[in-house]
Amino acid sequence: MSAPLKNDTFIRALLKQPVDRTPVWIMRQAGRYLPEYKEVRAQAGDFMSLCRSAELACEVTMQPLRRFDLDAAILFSDILTIPDAMGLGLHFEAGEGPKFSNPIKSAADVKALPIPDPNDELQYVMNAVSLIRKTLDGKVPLIGFSGSPWTLASYMVEGGGTKDFGKVKGMMFSDPTSMHLMLDKTAQSVTSYLNAQIEAGAQAVMVFDTWGGVLSHEKYKEFSLQYMQQIVDGLKRTHDGQTIPVTLFTKNGGQWLGDMADTGCDGLGVDWTTDLSRAKELTKGKVALQGNLDPSVLYADDDTIKAEVKKVLTSFGDGPGHVFNLGHGIHQHINPDRVKTLVDAVHAG
Amino acid sequence: MSAPLKNDTFIRALLKQPVDRTPVWIMRQAGRYLPEYKEVRAQAGDFMSLCRSAELACEVTMQPLRRFDLDAAILFSDILTIPDAMGLGLHFEAGEGPKFSNPIKSAADVKALPIPDPNDELQYVMNAVSLIRKTLDGKVPLIGFSGSPWTLASYMVEGGGTKDFGKVKGMMFSDPTSMHLMLDKTAQSVTSYLNAQIEAGAQAVMVFDTWGGVLSHEKYKEFSLQYMQQIVDGLKRTHDGQTIPVTLFTKNGGQWLGDMADTGCDGLGVDWTTDLSRAKELTKGKVALQGNLDPSVLYADDDTIKAEVKKVLTSFGDGPGHVFNLGHGIHQHINPDRVKTLVDAVHAG
Repeated sequence: MSAPLKNDTFIRALLKQPVDRTPVWIMRQAGRYLPEYKEVRAQAGDFMSLCRSAELACEVTMQPLRRFDLDAAILFSDILTIPDAMGLGLHFEAGEGPKFSNPIKSAADVKALPIPDPNDELQYVMNAVSLIRKTLDGKVPLIGFSGSPWTLASYMVEGGGTKDFGKVKGMMFSDPTSMHLMLDKTAQSVTSYLNAQIEAGAQAVMVFDTWGGVLSHEKYKEFSLQYMQQIVDGLKRTHDGQTIPVTLFTKNGGQWLGDMADTGCDGLGVDWTTDLSRAKELTKGKVALQGNLDPSVLYADDDTIKAEVKKVLTSFGDGPGHVFNLGHGIHQHINPDRVKTLVDAVHAG
Repeated sequence: MSAPLKNDTFIRALLKQPVDRTPVWIMRQAGRYLPEYKEVRAQAGDFMSLCRSAELACEVTMQPLRRFDLDAAILFSDILTIPDAMGLGLHFEAGEGPKFSNPIKSAADVKALPIPDPNDELQYVMNAVSLIRKTLDGKVPLIGFSGSPWTLASYMVEGGGTKDFGKVKGMMFSDPTSMHLMLDKTAQSVTSYLNAQIEAGAQAVMVFDTWGGVLSHEKYKEFSLQYMQQIVDGLKRTHDGQTIPVTLFTKNGGQWLGDMADTGCDGLGVDWTTDLSRAKELTKGKVALQGNLDPSVLYADDDTIKAEVKKVLTSFGDGPGHVFNLGHGIHQHINPDRVKTLVDAVHAG
């Protein structure tokens, strides 16, 4: 049996239950802004070697929890592990972000895509989840995650980052049948991947739809949200007697929060371009909200950070269902002391 | 006296007057997707030499009008001419986008910023406007333009393009006084620059707020919209007996269209993430709408393009006040034949 949770405020907030203080965690809380992370990263060699080592992934997952009074841990991994396990050859070029050696170029490539077994090619992720969960020993809950099907497909077709999404949208407009096949395969893969993370010890899961916001509303519903719905419907929502909350996050998806809330997920990530008060109106109390401080606030002084934290808390207002977070990942040049200011300011209320 | 307009559908649509067909123009319609543009660009040498030559700027402005049945011409220039005239040293590095040799780094730099005289340092732009207007000979109206104060300030502080806006937001949060001073100087500069373009022959003007969408709603109103309001209030709205329509465009600003409509501008650009039907609701009939096809549709075949054009027209629905456009600039690898399909499909209705 696992250790009972000593701090369950994050889970309770996602389930819209009352909490004593607003829980907070930070997207990319284990990352390059921490000198101790950079040490482990250098020791590991390349980025994927860090992800593939359960011991090192566990170590960097725990690092921010030693510095800050955070209410959740999040698995250290990459959003592109699934396409890598599909055989696309994920690697990282210095200063260039992720690249695939074998991007998807044709309908035939899509047909040939396998659905990876999470307990085979992706076993290294499950090993990390198990070890982190054990190491946490009930301190705070562990969040598992994946990229969304549309976001994974964007990288898979573009072969890496992109500014205009010409290739993936080209396929979407010109060959929607292949695009739907790829998204269906990816959604099946994400579902079994997240369920395996839950079996291995993840106490909540989150789907990062980094690129859904580059679509029109119509295409968002057809090519991104539909497949996140498929995942929500296929997840193990309880495990080991505990409810496993599911959070969806579409960056720049503020206009579509109402549609997202209708998927039946528990929580929605909100970026800073949408006020939480507006997000509450759009979601009509159906879901908890996670967010939404602009990560750039952390470049400012402590008093400004405290004032901006207060604005976010006030924007959410009364009632349960708020998990504090940044509206996107923390930047690499932030001073860790500013993060402590933020976390403590959230808890001070 | 200037030649009377033979085709005034663009102006009429922006003023919400009835038109026989929906007018259409395309952001970056003079650009790298046209082989004849690339020839002139090569002849000019660097990009700013092309902008600084009235003859060459006029030639590339006219090129798309020879190929397509467009309802407006837009001055060929760069959005960063003002900071260049302020002394920041604009240049373009191959494949890297715009760079400034002397970016703004301190409060002292902001204090030292001059307000350029549009009929001195920026006279080359006015020469281009005059020549294009004369060359058009009333065929279609000529649009003048500028970047918005926030967008110019972003480049001025970052020194070029950026992914996370850390420097400019750092200044915004840490030293809002300097940021407001820079934005006020920039807004004064944009106002006199656009008024000089109107004097020189621009029959409509547009303000491109490429980066307003990276702000929260509160910061958008304070640091971007406030200064576009200052510009709208300071523009010559009639010239030579004609009304000069003013259009504002904040990329990723769909959530704030209602606030933008309240500035008293004539038209708003809308990107493809916001349905025009929704944009109409948000703006309550106060303004015309310009947009909003996803530029990536042009990677698809003719039938798909026609179907997607029809969806945009249907989304706007009945009534005057629609100028068809892409939701952002055309991509450089688009086949010009696809643009002809688009333009003709808009006119076919």
